[in-house]
Amino acid sequence: MTIKLYCFGESGNSYKAALALQFSGLAWEPVYVDFFNGETRAPEYRNNINALGEAPVMVDGEFHLSQSGVIQQYVTDKSGKFGGASDAERYEVLRWVLWDNHKLSSQAGMTRFLMNFLPEDKRPAEVIGFNLGRLKAAYHVLNAHLEGRDWIVGDGITNADLSCCGYLYYPEPFGFERAEWPHIDAWLTRLSEQPGWKHPYDLMPGNPSDRA
Amino acid sequence: MTIKLYCFGESGNSYKAALALQFSGLAWEPVYVDFFNGETRAPEYRNNINALGEAPVMVDGEFHLSQSGVIQQYVTDKSGKFGGASDAERYEVLRWVLWDNHKLSSQAGMTRFLMNFLPEDKRPAEVIGFNLGRLKAAYHVLNAHLEGRDWIVGDGITNADLSCCGYLYYPEPFGFERAEWPHIDAWLTRLSEQPGWKHPYDLMPGNPSDRA
Repeated sequence: MTIKLYCFGESGNSYKAALALQFSGLAWEPVYVDFFNGETRAPEYRNNINALGEAPVMVDGEFHLSQSGVIQQYVTDKSGKFGGASDAERYEVLRWVLWDNHKLSSQAGMTRFLMNFLPEDKRPAEVIGFNLGRLKAAYHVLNAHLEGRDWIVGDGITNADLSCCGYLYYPEPFGFERAEWPHIDAWLTRLSEQPGWKHPYDLMPGNPSDRA
Repeated sequence: MTIKLYCFGESGNSYKAALALQFSGLAWEPVYVDFFNGETRAPEYRNNINALGEAPVMVDGEFHLSQSGVIQQYVTDKSGKFGGASDAERYEVLRWVLWDNHKLSSQAGMTRFLMNFLPEDKRPAEVIGFNLGRLKAAYHVLNAHLEGRDWIVGDGITNADLSCCGYLYYPEPFGFERAEWPHIDAWLTRLSEQPGWKHPYDLMPGNPSDRA
């Protein structure tokens, strides 16, 4: 049975799950969620797909999972990939997935939304400035960690990489300039050269030009 | 060997790890981190305890772990407790730990810091107001989920409970009034009635009166 991923192209959290599925070799297909027209707030989605209105949501037989990090763990359990090669690596992978949820993707996603997808007269300047400062600290941590490393944990791609990259390929401004962070830049290039890699707007349906 | 937890009382993220250790029955002791006098930014801490200046950090033999959710997973692996009773529950526990890191504790911790531990003239009003709005949405989600449930996942305490409660016992204002959220209130009471439970300021060294 083909795994279904309810997702949309603008969502970096969706991308984390989609990229894990794409690299895993498991059979999967995206199901478009029309977030910007309110689909995740509508009763049909809340009742049938996700009570909290979250995306992404993965459906595979009896498993009906939300939170990108959970879907990544499911892909790891099913495929044997991306979980780390030892107990120590397994904890280190979880560490970076949590760090990303706390410090990087959560801030990047919100800041990108505020800077790009809100009407110009509703963008809260002080909040955006504050978030940009926090994001810069996160970029610094990731860039320093990647110096001398190919991947965030161990010798191959893990969910740490597939989580932290979630928002970093998007073209919309949110205070991230690849050229300023050379080790992040090289790692993003390395990841994008893996077989099967696609940009979020190519891997999932939906992108800002649909609404232009 | 006694597990050491580098932590401080004001840190809800430390509390999540300390409470898991406390309820697990494993032998552990807190080691005070003097965060407010800059210990986590000092070279000794960065070189010997944690390169990123994080707290909490757990040391148990060869394992040297950061991120409260990782320490909780380690406690689960070692004690057999708090991980959920099935694969489905295990994913559901991870879901709420990630949700907490993304939506609840991350926002509560930052907002409490801005509202209480920054000098009054440096508190960013627009950022605080924005965060209070996001927090209210998170309280709403947790309160609705706990209606009719004793615990967040399944029939007993899991890391989902031990993560989401991280900041909710603190007395300092950050937009959380227990009386407004009856199902959260009852759940916090239930948790505080478990054998061994202590308030964060009693479970770990360090609290604001030390600096008064």
